[in-house]
Amino acid sequence: MPGVTLPFPIAVSLGDPAGIGPEVLAKAWDARQAQHLPPFFAIGDRRALAAVWSGPVETLEDPRDALSVFPRALPLVQVDDPGDLVPGHPNLAGARCALDSLELGVGLTRTAMASALVTGPVSKAQLYQIGFTYPGQTEFVAERCGVAAARAVMMLAGPSLRTVPLTVHVPLADVPRLICKELIITRARVLCRALQRDFGIEHPRLVVAGLNPHAGENATIGREEAEIIIPAVAELQAGGMNIVGPLAADTMFHAAARQHYDAALCMYHDQALIPIKTLHFDDGVNTTLGLPIVRTSPDHGTAFSIAGTGQATPGAMIAAIRLAGECAARRLLAANAAAAAA
Amino acid sequence: MPGVTLPFPIAVSLGDPAGIGPEVLAKAWDARQAQHLPPFFAIGDRRALAAVWSGPVETLEDPRDALSVFPRALPLVQVDDPGDLVPGHPNLAGARCALDSLELGVGLTRTAMASALVTGPVSKAQLYQIGFTYPGQTEFVAERCGVAAARAVMMLAGPSLRTVPLTVHVPLADVPRLICKELIITRARVLCRALQRDFGIEHPRLVVAGLNPHAGENATIGREEAEIIIPAVAELQAGGMNIVGPLAADTMFHAAARQHYDAALCMYHDQALIPIKTLHFDDGVNTTLGLPIVRTSPDHGTAFSIAGTGQATPGAMIAAIRLAGECAARRLLAANAAAAAA
Repeated sequence: MPGVTLPFPIAVSLGDPAGIGPEVLAKAWDARQAQHLPPFFAIGDRRALAAVWSGPVETLEDPRDALSVFPRALPLVQVDDPGDLVPGHPNLAGARCALDSLELGVGLTRTAMASALVTGPVSKAQLYQIGFTYPGQTEFVAERCGVAAARAVMMLAGPSLRTVPLTVHVPLADVPRLICKELIITRARVLCRALQRDFGIEHPRLVVAGLNPHAGENATIGREEAEIIIPAVAELQAGGMNIVGPLAADTMFHAAARQHYDAALCMYHDQALIPIKTLHFDDGVNTTLGLPIVRTSPDHGTAFSIAGTGQATPGAMIAAIRLAGECAARRLLAANAAAAAA
Repeated sequence: MPGVTLPFPIAVSLGDPAGIGPEVLAKAWDARQAQHLPPFFAIGDRRALAAVWSGPVETLEDPRDALSVFPRALPLVQVDDPGDLVPGHPNLAGARCALDSLELGVGLTRTAMASALVTGPVSKAQLYQIGFTYPGQTEFVAERCGVAAARAVMMLAGPSLRTVPLTVHVPLADVPRLICKELIITRARVLCRALQRDFGIEHPRLVVAGLNPHAGENATIGREEAEIIIPAVAELQAGGMNIVGPLAADTMFHAAARQHYDAALCMYHDQALIPIKTLHFDDGVNTTLGLPIVRTSPDHGTAFSIAGTGQATPGAMIAAIRLAGECAARRLLAANAAAAAA
């Protein structure tokens, strides 16, 4: 953790008020001292918190007051009242509340009223019904930040592994034709820069997974490695990047193999998500690289089926807040150093 | 472990003599007492063992003598002399030796001179050069046992997870069109029967992975779940099988999720192999279900790059021998019970 105190709190949108977002954030506040969490404030609806938690909440007029409130209560920026809600029972008013919270969170972070943004889990199915047209929160945040979707890179991070899926929520049958040299090169460069800037890794070591079994086994099981991935890796290596691949996907994620790289570029959703969630189901963080702001998210969904039962565990939310604080602190240190040098 | 002593030893083909097969089997023999391994004998070339190990080897005339030799020396059935060999440097004579060993191993197990067959790692690239026409050892063993390839089912087994890939060494782009209802149903039935017969699980609990991200998310990310997998699962459930799915592949392999099933049917190679090798890289076993004989294999390759250096670890070979012994004992107990009841 960089040795610097953030001048502003971290903004956390609660996500769908009927999901587990409010509960896991309240539990994270309960654990703020034991976990040494940086100050944060919630954006969402007060009643969503009250429905699942009896702890203290203070509504803020100015988000920056969160720093003084944080030790004694969970600071909250209230959005438009979503009306009645029952945990586990999403409705469209709740979806509007989630979207308002997300939009306000991006705005506050973009205008430096918050040091970083953590986004709670939303229901895409509900959001689509109120006219949301983005594949997910990541693309929405990227657009609000003025960054092209191809350059906003989703990374999944756990304590022992970081992976980046090149393609995400598309049918498996579409994956082979979506993989191209330019995509690999663009994402690898964003990833490499973010590992330096946000994760403090001066010389990042990257690996790339093959698309086919055994990474195509010398082009005998599929030709995408030979025709697309190998040329992309060669071009990146020629540019000075420390990158290796394509590797056989099945043998690149065990404990000994993970020692050899800082992040793995994967070809599709499950190739990147299976190893992360198998190893780090309770503390995986989804972070968006390549943005002008720091944005993280706990790597789980709304879990409507357990919302309101008290069973949700805050590990991923705590990890998301901690990582957001660390990345924001590194950016601040770099900005300070640049200012001092100028 | 079933309480029965096997009447015959376990046959272990050494695989490619220039690979790590001889070394890991020798190390398994060294560990026979600490690991409580059932008696086994090697099939292959004496010099391949001598090149990497200074322990005692006794060449057998009759494989059944292995039981008396095993406590004092590693018993060996010698195949045709492959000539000079250097660990880490495969050649075609070595490939012929590997194929002879495999063929003899199948024959001895089929004729009940051995209780089960464990196959060491071979080089497919080398075998193809001497006219081998099977995709791998599994298909060769199935054919020699008179079992159609579709009914010989590869399962990967580790201490906390068992997975079955529906498709194996095919390009990822071909996977969607190879998945069909009949394949799922046939493989699930073979798997269920084998869990009962070979693994002693009276009422097996199976799960099936989806093909697409989030198992297709209600047919919004691919339609194979709705059109193929769900109808197959429904038909199996109607037949009385305890089977659930399709499940989102990324969230089905973490520790808590693994408590709910005995084996997972997966759609393609990396979906089944990533979780197994991430969790159980050093002790995964590949076993072929649905055969008249018990056949297992350590879940690693020839590792030519470290052959002869002494670095190979015998964990997977030990696990493969142990599992072969357990499955053979369960079949023996069932046969004895059937004979007693007749």
